[in-house]
Amino acid sequence: MSRDLPKNRGKRSAVTQEPMGVAVVGAGYWGPNLVRNFQASERFRLRWLCDLDVDRAQRVLGGYSTVQATADYAAVLADPEVAAVAVATPAGTHLDIALAALRAGKHVLVEKPLAATYADGMRLVTEAEDRGLTLMCDHTYCYTPAVGRIRDMVHSGELGEIHFVDSVRINLGLVQKDIDVMWDLAPHDLSILDFILPAGVEPVAVAAHGADPIGAGQACVAYLTLTLNTGAIAHVHVNWLSPTKVRTTMVGGAKRTLVWDDLNPLQRVAVYDRGVDLASPQEIGADERRDMLVSYRSGDMVAPALGEKEALRGMVDEFGDAIRERRAPLTDGRAGLRVLDILEAASRSLEFKGAVVGLRAGR
Amino acid sequence: MSRDLPKNRGKRSAVTQEPMGVAVVGAGYWGPNLVRNFQASERFRLRWLCDLDVDRAQRVLGGYSTVQATADYAAVLADPEVAAVAVATPAGTHLDIALAALRAGKHVLVEKPLAATYADGMRLVTEAEDRGLTLMCDHTYCYTPAVGRIRDMVHSGELGEIHFVDSVRINLGLVQKDIDVMWDLAPHDLSILDFILPAGVEPVAVAAHGADPIGAGQACVAYLTLTLNTGAIAHVHVNWLSPTKVRTTMVGGAKRTLVWDDLNPLQRVAVYDRGVDLASPQEIGADERRDMLVSYRSGDMVAPALGEKEALRGMVDEFGDAIRERRAPLTDGRAGLRVLDILEAASRSLEFKGAVVGLRAGR
Amino acid sequence: MSRDLPKNRGKRSAVTQEPMGVAVVGAGYWGPNLVRNFQASERFRLRWLCDLDVDRAQRVLGGYSTVQATADYAAVLADPEVAAVAVATPAGTHLDIALAALRAGKHVLVEKPLAATYADGMRLVTEAEDRGLTLMCDHTYCYTPAVGRIRDMVHSGELGEIHFVDSVRINLGLVQKDIDVMWDLAPHDLSILDFILPAGVEPVAVAAHGADPIGAGQACVAYLTLTLNTGAIAHVHVNWLSPTKVRTTMVGGAKRTLVWDDLNPLQRVAVYDRGVDLASPQEIGADERRDMLVSYRSGDMVAPALGEKEALRGMVDEFGDAIRERRAPLTDGRAGLRVLDILEAASRSLEFKGAVVGLRAGR
Amino acid sequence: MSRDLPKNRGKRSAVTQEPMGVAVVGAGYWGPNLVRNFQASERFRLRWLCDLDVDRAQRVLGGYSTVQATADYAAVLADPEVAAVAVATPAGTHLDIALAALRAGKHVLVEKPLAATYADGMRLVTEAEDRGLTLMCDHTYCYTPAVGRIRDMVHSGELGEIHFVDSVRINLGLVQKDIDVMWDLAPHDLSILDFILPAGVEPVAVAAHGADPIGAGQACVAYLTLTLNTGAIAHVHVNWLSPTKVRTTMVGGAKRTLVWDDLNPLQRVAVYDRGVDLASPQEIGADERRDMLVSYRSGDMVAPALGEKEALRGMVDEFGDAIRERRAPLTDGRAGLRVLDILEAASRSLEFKGAVVGLRAGR
Repeated sequence: MSRDLPKNRGKRSAVTQEPMGVAVVGAGYWGPNLVRNFQASERFRLRWLCDLDVDRAQRVLGGYSTVQATADYAAVLADPEVAAVAVATPAGTHLDIALAALRAGKHVLVEKPLAATYADGMRLVTEAEDRGLTLMCDHTYCYTPAVGRIRDMVHSGELGEIHFVDSVRINLGLVQKDIDVMWDLAPHDLSILDFILPAGVEPVAVAAHGADPIGAGQACVAYLTLTLNTGAIAHVHVNWLSPTKVRTTMVGGAKRTLVWDDLNPLQRVAVYDRGVDLASPQEIGADERRDMLVSYRSGDMVAPALGEKEALRGMVDEFGDAIRERRAPLTDGRAGLRVLDILEAASRSLEFKGAVVGLRAGR
Repeated sequence: MSRDLPKNRGKRSAVTQEPMGVAVVGAGYWGPNLVRNFQASERFRLRWLCDLDVDRAQRVLGGYSTVQATADYAAVLADPEVAAVAVATPAGTHLDIALAALRAGKHVLVEKPLAATYADGMRLVTEAEDRGLTLMCDHTYCYTPAVGRIRDMVHSGELGEIHFVDSVRINLGLVQKDIDVMWDLAPHDLSILDFILPAGVEPVAVAAHGADPIGAGQACVAYLTLTLNTGAIAHVHVNWLSPTKVRTTMVGGAKRTLVWDDLNPLQRVAVYDRGVDLASPQEIGADERRDMLVSYRSGDMVAPALGEKEALRGMVDEFGDAIRERRAPLTDGRAGLRVLDILEAASRSLEFKGAVVGLRAGR
Repeated sequence: MSRDLPKNRGKRSAVTQEPMGVAVVGAGYWGPNLVRNFQASERFRLRWLCDLDVDRAQRVLGGYSTVQATADYAAVLADPEVAAVAVATPAGTHLDIALAALRAGKHVLVEKPLAATYADGMRLVTEAEDRGLTLMCDHTYCYTPAVGRIRDMVHSGELGEIHFVDSVRINLGLVQKDIDVMWDLAPHDLSILDFILPAGVEPVAVAAHGADPIGAGQACVAYLTLTLNTGAIAHVHVNWLSPTKVRTTMVGGAKRTLVWDDLNPLQRVAVYDRGVDLASPQEIGADERRDMLVSYRSGDMVAPALGEKEALRGMVDEFGDAIRERRAPLTDGRAGLRVLDILEAASRSLEFKGAVVGLRAGR
Repeated sequence: MSRDLPKNRGKRSAVTQEPMGVAVVGAGYWGPNLVRNFQASERFRLRWLCDLDVDRAQRVLGGYSTVQATADYAAVLADPEVAAVAVATPAGTHLDIALAALRAGKHVLVEKPLAATYADGMRLVTEAEDRGLTLMCDHTYCYTPAVGRIRDMVHSGELGEIHFVDSVRINLGLVQKDIDVMWDLAPHDLSILDFILPAGVEPVAVAAHGADPIGAGQACVAYLTLTLNTGAIAHVHVNWLSPTKVRTTMVGGAKRTLVWDDLNPLQRVAVYDRGVDLASPQEIGADERRDMLVSYRSGDMVAPALGEKEALRGMVDEFGDAIRERRAPLTDGRAGLRVLDILEAASRSLEFKGAVVGLRAGR
């Protein structure tokens, strides 16, 4: 095909240390992506792909690989060369698999959501903290150049105070037996929200509305509304029944508003200098009319150049760096816990027909 | 400029009767559009444009018009040649102006929303019904070719049972003093919903979440969730703070799903034969696994050819025809009432932080 | 409908002088637009709409207008209140109608193309210059905010030297009896090109390729390639047979490249800081390898905020101002001549199967 | 990430035979894609990746592969297990490498263009035919579901006779030392054109216009116009300097017109029932006016559901099947020759400032 310009594949850091042995557990939907990215990372040496169905694991590895397929998780944990384990199995199994790995002294990366419940997630976090091991949650989107840029713009104040966040993630999706559309898709949006909010700004309550119009036994369409402690509002629309795929997040700020369209590779992020301003009371005389306060900005739009580094590769690198540097990864277990907190509260809200449910305090 | 193909401007019906005298009240934002369309319609003869600010009325008419500008509403009502009055003033004034017209024996067209409250709207409906006069609400979008097509496809069963409706109407909009974004924009979506739903299907409750992050004194961002009596869900997102303009409605049905993008003139309506199907219990053996029930359709998309007739022209024609044929117009006063019912309930929900509020029974 | 922000309708200039009497000739496709805009302009007083078919003229004026419809062009020319005449008739009639007006001492605005031939156009230009009258060509697109911005960016050097211009104007268009797609549509692109090129840069030759695959007797698809005196290339694709409408112009410069998509109201103009740079020989050592010279810019894209003023209104205002200020209008008769020159050369090229045809020297 | 529906990965054919040994030559831009797809195909067993720079070859294979990297092409050809060789080296080297492989009795797949000249290409075709070996050209796009569908619709008559083909392939591309933008990008469009045209329809002449505005020593912008023996026209726009990426092909037919937008994964192919029809002379009386002949269709648009199978995988499979079934592959050496014929003629045209150059007769 034609030669595009070489994509920015990230600086190759000067990794002088030996690569770290790693094992991937789970050869289902997401596991192969982890396999590919661990193989591509200089920080790791992939040793095992473990799945109860060893044939599936072997098929994922293909006919040319030197990586070992196995169904014997105990053997993986017993391998002293394995320093880290990446868990890509169904959420219901995360607790047991990750706990075993931590108890075997391995650092652990867990596919989202961190666990099936907040309580389970807390057990993992505590275990890892007690043992001084790295526990990371694979909030992949947080490692996209787009989300990185959003976080930078929020934290630097370039957008101004956050006014609203509106996220749409809809698609003709696989209706699942065990989890509803909210648990399937909203972790992406909630982990992104958690990642971009500046210190001191946090959701305090959530309400969720959903429907199961096809009788799947699970909500297939859901809307989550989060109230932030600043009065701002965040809203998430997730939907398995949409014939078109939409992945858009709008972050409205006091100074600028940003629109991220993940399906538009030519212009993923657009920053608009457009908005509504209100003069502060000090600036205007008491007897001026109310509608004099409002003014409108209609400035330019800037679509910043972003690299095209694969998010998962950045996530894998962060896992390696956090372990080496003995620091919390950007999306650590506690970030996974905060997402679980919202998901559980949203499920309760769904159960109670949209009642507002408060969140646990503190980020 | 280059010559596009002539647009379908609708059949010119054989109107042998004399055109009907009409007056427009209100020369503000919407009035000029009514003036233009009444002038273009063979069914009407525009006689007056009435506004408290007669200069504004004259400016709207321009320097070449034979239509009379006036500030004297009584004179308009006293004109025996005026058979109908179109009211395009702020909602708070609808009751008085429309009531006076009805009492003067005039047919009345009212800009949306029908009135400031459900009670006021009911007084208008009752007055018109008592007097045998036509009362119509200008739900303009219902007269677009797109919405007409959606209604046809819903009513004919082509889409199958409605599963969900998702409407987004966001824009950098005029923040208003008297009404919030919900009362400003959602009447469009609610009147469309009212228009397309088949007999027997109706909203029964609404929850609304909103925010006023700029301190405007009114909600500037709002989300409405409606529960239908069938278990389907309808959701409306309205927003004055969005830097980009989006006007999209998705109507998910059991057989097809339709996406209407009003800002894409080249492809306003797209009908997808894509979706999720569940086999009914009769079709499968009792011991078959749950996930065997689900199947996916991935068929073609069809974008039907639609005419480009101006909606407002169709609305004006319908007003004339309904008067002549002594029948209820497609968007009559009762349709306006149903929209008011939802708006009032949504306001109550907003007040109570998103509590679900039931609607008045019956369409 | 919902209230968008008020559009920028241009500054109302302090016109203290009396409006100038004007007549529009031709009530066909384009005439009604001129009628509407002359009525809206404070610079003019529209007195006549003249058409051989007086009923058509009356229909265009509608039932509420004080403007006179007539089929008697002599009467229009004899009206001493008429200072200017706007001609919107088929190109073949431009010479006679415009010449008569000039000889009657009227300023003249002519619909594009200026005349049916370069020779005819030259007669009009000469006549107007001899008489000291304003002759203007209605190159409407030159008065759009987008083209104005492009011209500014080219002239200010913001884009750098022009490298290439690529214009696509395709649509399912009215196949015409008398003129081919090139004469129908390319005048837009050629007049825009003429308008934006800086002093000293000009087309020197053209080659045209076309086809009449449906047997219409005229080329329905055509491609024009212009060579500029700088070595830059300009290309125009016009097509009556395309089922989709595309109106895009890309202006590639040494520093920036601009894309104008006239059908994207939310982002008509995008300026990319992306491109290929070559180091100049002085900057590099003689023995450095050739491929070391190339570097790539991958900067941001900026979509400047543009007003939404109607182009035709700006054109009409410019006509009035040029007459008042006794200066050449921005798109004067000579601009129309330059476009005719290219069109005639392109027709000759079409005739000779794409042979390159030189243009008359001098702008 | 979220689970999309499983993509259609094509039927797994019942391959009972042993996989065939294959070697890839060239570990540059395209080689890695061939490596990946040969590994994924059950029809092949990848044995070697050969590159003069053996470290580069090893890097492509990565640290987990059992495939052998080598710089020793002779050893590859001497390997009796190698039945086929895939050549992904610069075009100038194709002749020697492919000829050596054919002479060693190997089947050969060559990256586009087939060779640096028509004469070289002919030597390869002749050699392969003399030896009864498969020679295939990697015209990858011909194996996309979109192009397959286009070919089907053309061959079945669903589009009607071809009226025009318009192809745009522009991007900020790698400016290359040895070849111009035409040789770099147009082979894609020309091979697609060759692939979709029905029997008996073929290009007979080409004209090319180009420019090198940045002084790269090669045309960086080029336009090719092909005349078909039916009077239809085909046009290709290739450009290395465009800041935006466009890959669109429009195929205009007598009955339908198809637009393929390769960058719109949600709607790659759209088929419009829109167009211009002319009544045939028999259908109308001799004295009816010319413009009565024209009528317009404004029907629906259909976007057919297409699978998402990787094109390169289909190409690799076709290579295997053609070898096994001892038949010409869909894009055989002669297809590659026809593309070379047009490219050479276009280069000559470029040299002679756009002069029309005839093509060799016969497909």
